[in-house]
Amino acid sequence: MPRYQAPLRDMRFLLNDVLKVDTYSNLPGFSDAPPDVVDAILDSGAKFASEVLQPLNAVGDRQGCTRNPDASVKTPDGFPDAYRQMVEGGWIAISGDPEYGGQGLPRIISMAFNEMCSSANMAFAMYPGLTHGAYSAIHVGGSDEQKRTYLPKLCTGEWSGTMNLTEPQCGTDLGLIKTKAVPQADGTYKITGQKIWISGGEQDLAPNIIQLVLARIEGAPEGVKGISLFIVPKYLVNADGSLGARNAFECGGLEEKMGIHGNATCVMNYDGATGYLVGEPHKGMRTMFVMMNEARLGVGMQGLAQAEVSYQNAADFARERVQGRSITGAKAPDKPADPIIVHPDVRRMLMDMKSFTEGARAFTYWLALQGDLMHVSPDEITRTRADDRMALLTPVVKGYLTDKGFRSASDALQLHGGAGYTREQGVEQFVRDARIAMIYEGTNGIQALDLVGRKLASNGGRAVFQVFTDMEEFCSAHEASEDMKPFVAGLQTAEAQLKEATMWLMQNGMSNFDNAGASSHDYLHLFGLAMLALMWARMADAALQKRATGDSFYEDKLLTARYFFDRVLPDAASHLAKVKTGAAPVMALKADAF
Amino acid sequence: MPRYQAPLRDMRFLLNDVLKVDTYSNLPGFSDAPPDVVDAILDSGAKFASEVLQPLNAVGDRQGCTRNPDASVKTPDGFPDAYRQMVEGGWIAISGDPEYGGQGLPRIISMAFNEMCSSANMAFAMYPGLTHGAYSAIHVGGSDEQKRTYLPKLCTGEWSGTMNLTEPQCGTDLGLIKTKAVPQADGTYKITGQKIWISGGEQDLAPNIIQLVLARIEGAPEGVKGISLFIVPKYLVNADGSLGARNAFECGGLEEKMGIHGNATCVMNYDGATGYLVGEPHKGMRTMFVMMNEARLGVGMQGLAQAEVSYQNAADFARERVQGRSITGAKAPDKPADPIIVHPDVRRMLMDMKSFTEGARAFTYWLALQGDLMHVSPDEITRTRADDRMALLTPVVKGYLTDKGFRSASDALQLHGGAGYTREQGVEQFVRDARIAMIYEGTNGIQALDLVGRKLASNGGRAVFQVFTDMEEFCSAHEASEDMKPFVAGLQTAEAQLKEATMWLMQNGMSNFDNAGASSHDYLHLFGLAMLALMWARMADAALQKRATGDSFYEDKLLTARYFFDRVLPDAASHLAKVKTGAAPVMALKADAF
Repeated sequence: MPRYQAPLRDMRFLLNDVLKVDTYSNLPGFSDAPPDVVDAILDSGAKFASEVLQPLNAVGDRQGCTRNPDASVKTPDGFPDAYRQMVEGGWIAISGDPEYGGQGLPRIISMAFNEMCSSANMAFAMYPGLTHGAYSAIHVGGSDEQKRTYLPKLCTGEWSGTMNLTEPQCGTDLGLIKTKAVPQADGTYKITGQKIWISGGEQDLAPNIIQLVLARIEGAPEGVKGISLFIVPKYLVNADGSLGARNAFECGGLEEKMGIHGNATCVMNYDGATGYLVGEPHKGMRTMFVMMNEARLGVGMQGLAQAEVSYQNAADFARERVQGRSITGAKAPDKPADPIIVHPDVRRMLMDMKSFTEGARAFTYWLALQGDLMHVSPDEITRTRADDRMALLTPVVKGYLTDKGFRSASDALQLHGGAGYTREQGVEQFVRDARIAMIYEGTNGIQALDLVGRKLASNGGRAVFQVFTDMEEFCSAHEASEDMKPFVAGLQTAEAQLKEATMWLMQNGMSNFDNAGASSHDYLHLFGLAMLALMWARMADAALQKRATGDSFYEDKLLTARYFFDRVLPDAASHLAKVKTGAAPVMALKADAF
Repeated sequence: MPRYQAPLRDMRFLLNDVLKVDTYSNLPGFSDAPPDVVDAILDSGAKFASEVLQPLNAVGDRQGCTRNPDASVKTPDGFPDAYRQMVEGGWIAISGDPEYGGQGLPRIISMAFNEMCSSANMAFAMYPGLTHGAYSAIHVGGSDEQKRTYLPKLCTGEWSGTMNLTEPQCGTDLGLIKTKAVPQADGTYKITGQKIWISGGEQDLAPNIIQLVLARIEGAPEGVKGISLFIVPKYLVNADGSLGARNAFECGGLEEKMGIHGNATCVMNYDGATGYLVGEPHKGMRTMFVMMNEARLGVGMQGLAQAEVSYQNAADFARERVQGRSITGAKAPDKPADPIIVHPDVRRMLMDMKSFTEGARAFTYWLALQGDLMHVSPDEITRTRADDRMALLTPVVKGYLTDKGFRSASDALQLHGGAGYTREQGVEQFVRDARIAMIYEGTNGIQALDLVGRKLASNGGRAVFQVFTDMEEFCSAHEASEDMKPFVAGLQTAEAQLKEATMWLMQNGMSNFDNAGASSHDYLHLFGLAMLALMWARMADAALQKRATGDSFYEDKLLTARYFFDRVLPDAASHLAKVKTGAAPVMALKADAF
């Protein structure tokens, strides 16, 4: 059976030594999170994740969810109780708005907690994750009354929330939505239509489920400019906050999937259900994007989270399984064979995974910190830069971390040999679960297109030039240090490659959009590598400053940084070459030649 | 539901235009396979694969195999009947020795048929695949009596065969085998021990199952030098060929796996079972390696086969699914959206898959042809070169094609978006099925080590220098052609990179074996890319010669070749850079630092 121990040491290193969260202690939220409080939260969060959620991970995979004849849905054994503990422990409300019962702590703290939950049990962690998304959408776009009615219960997770976007004829292209909303005399709407792939659309964890539904008001313009957002609660809420009538929708079926079996993926049939418009008519996409951007950062984190738990189990297996002898001579002559961790190719896989997860964690937490700063910093320039970084890099985190997270999980399976392919060992579940993260909340192809087609050129490229400045400033500040030389040199290479690709796109992507589209995947990966290079350079700097403590953690961090620059970053050259070939070879064949 | 149509056009192009099989018509086997006979075989093979095997693929995945209380095993509904049709159609015997009832056709023909079966139903195709492996082992290592007793029925598939290598404590490291063989007065042995992960160890397809079992004769030397190979039939065979007593072994359980559910993966318990020694005592590994090398080429083909069927379904989906508009303006203004094949990133995935499968098919068939030539060519130099290529390149085919085959299947899933993640769509099964090919018959890490640690240096590097010569001769012969320029230039680059990596390994891998081990994965991938470059250059040449026919097949082939050189081959640079970093960054951390 797989195990999971939260990587608390690494989390603390990031928060304290790399991101230096204590330097923001003057800001709202951060002032409530001194190091000892953060430590206590992480400690008990880690305990909750490994003792409550992780043991339910394999159970959830095997049992899956069941739709009962009355259209109710049963989640796997143990899920309702674990969810209750999560709500009662106040975990869902960590970084919620104190006005609605949240604890108001920085998002970077809830990100760390969410990573633990997602490593321990991804299918489970999706339920509170989507609830938080619904909370954010209403928080951003809802009326005061809607906020008062729904936010306190969504903030704590007492009620759960979902997002209803997809329909059979539209996934990526939401302009094709057919679900209709008919205005009623009382100001409400009647919602009718079918939504599919609704994660947690129906379940037995919470007494009320607040559906956020995209629909088209009768007579609305065609395409995405005619889409409105509605709150459609499972039970209507009475004026006193108690639950009233059952709304007119139900779960029409569950999807059978490759993984995340513990999460109910529902077909939702709305049959004149009562809905409440969020914000203005026809402008639902705007609010939905707020929600989606937050969710995309969370999905990137899921890639990291599955990589982390896969890595931990692979490392255990590599130390315990004895098989063959080291090619440089027996290392455990007292045993019938050496542990397989002596083999260089096993090390290669472990180092690939380790350098990815630690770099990806730094990237994710750093971006979550930008998410905090863009809201709470008193300094306008800081807020703008944070906002720019968030917008530009969200598709990079989502696309790069989920692609590589899946790869890491698959490498962990590989390291186990035949055992990895058996259900009993448990690591193949990580591969199946991790696979969805490359698809949902916008496929990684959509992330890449968002990056090159929208984010890159936004404000005249201000955000990407800020990234170059971030990298250059770091290099200037550290190039005098002998110890930092290999890391600064590596980062300079990465920045030059990223800049070359960016310039190529600016010159060629505008004149022929297909050039941008054809290069988008490789550009996103190149960007991901360059950001991890920045993160590894920053981590190396932090580790060097602490190296004198003699704690081997810092030396190991430096060695892992070296591995990243020597053995991972070379992929950037290949991505750059592919970016620069443009669309011609990609688009040459006729559609019927495939 | 997924579909499969055998890529007959591409197969014929390879056999007729690229490999020019008709030029070998003077050789045994080939003389029985004029183009019209080959065409007829491929046509009816294609029909068998798509009409009989493919419809059972999803059934097999859902039902899996069941072990009955009496230790017998039930395969999925329809499998026994399909197997019967396969035997009766003479399909298993295509390239079997005519002395034992085979049709004696070249292996390259059976390779094409096996690819179709593997695309249509990988779990099913493993049963006859392993039977052929058992056939080959006895053909190579068995006594005349053993050949007479077992080969006729194994050749046709009337009886099935297996390989029993793995035990709980040993997978890769067969030196740790504990299963023991006790000599009996009558010259037989009593075999006792437990074998695991035995594909088709028990099933209801054939009336007798011939287990080939590695075991240690009492008093044998330790390690791989004390391992012997035994024939252990499920039913002992009477002198008249009829089935006699049930042997003393049974299936102790079935493994639950990520995929290939239709193939029974058995725990086999031997309890004093009667076994017959194959060849000399303690020299079983030698014969087993003959069998494994053949099997490894077959597993590489499985990577290609899953990529092909995934690709076909992805191409269909890309043409049919309408979603979004082309970024260069609507292409199907009469429809609510354009088919997604208009999007460059969708094309990128399709082109990656197409250029891989076609290149991989050329590589596999070319190597299968070497397998024929090394047996039947009258010319010693031809035989030696074919043998050298076979030995050197088998791990490359196995490792590279299964890694990339899995990647292709995963890309096909990605192209389907959310639908790809559902079981109903069927493409996720290809991903789960394809995953095993990276592991069994020696993990891809073992293939890489076999390549750098054994095959490369064998005979003073004769085989790898022959590969360089093959590439250089091709370039010299075609560099004067204007049309061939981009392909010759690409191949020259690939060869230079492969040579540089090879020289680095020869200089650094011998002085520190860890350098060889740490670079082995990237070296194998670089080798795979270079071989595909050679294949694509050869295919481009063949297509250019036929281009004047006006058949768009040849123009498309040239465009796909261009894609390979422009957008796939750049990965070689990154692999070369990683090879040359050597072991230091890989081995730096202590085992407990992971």
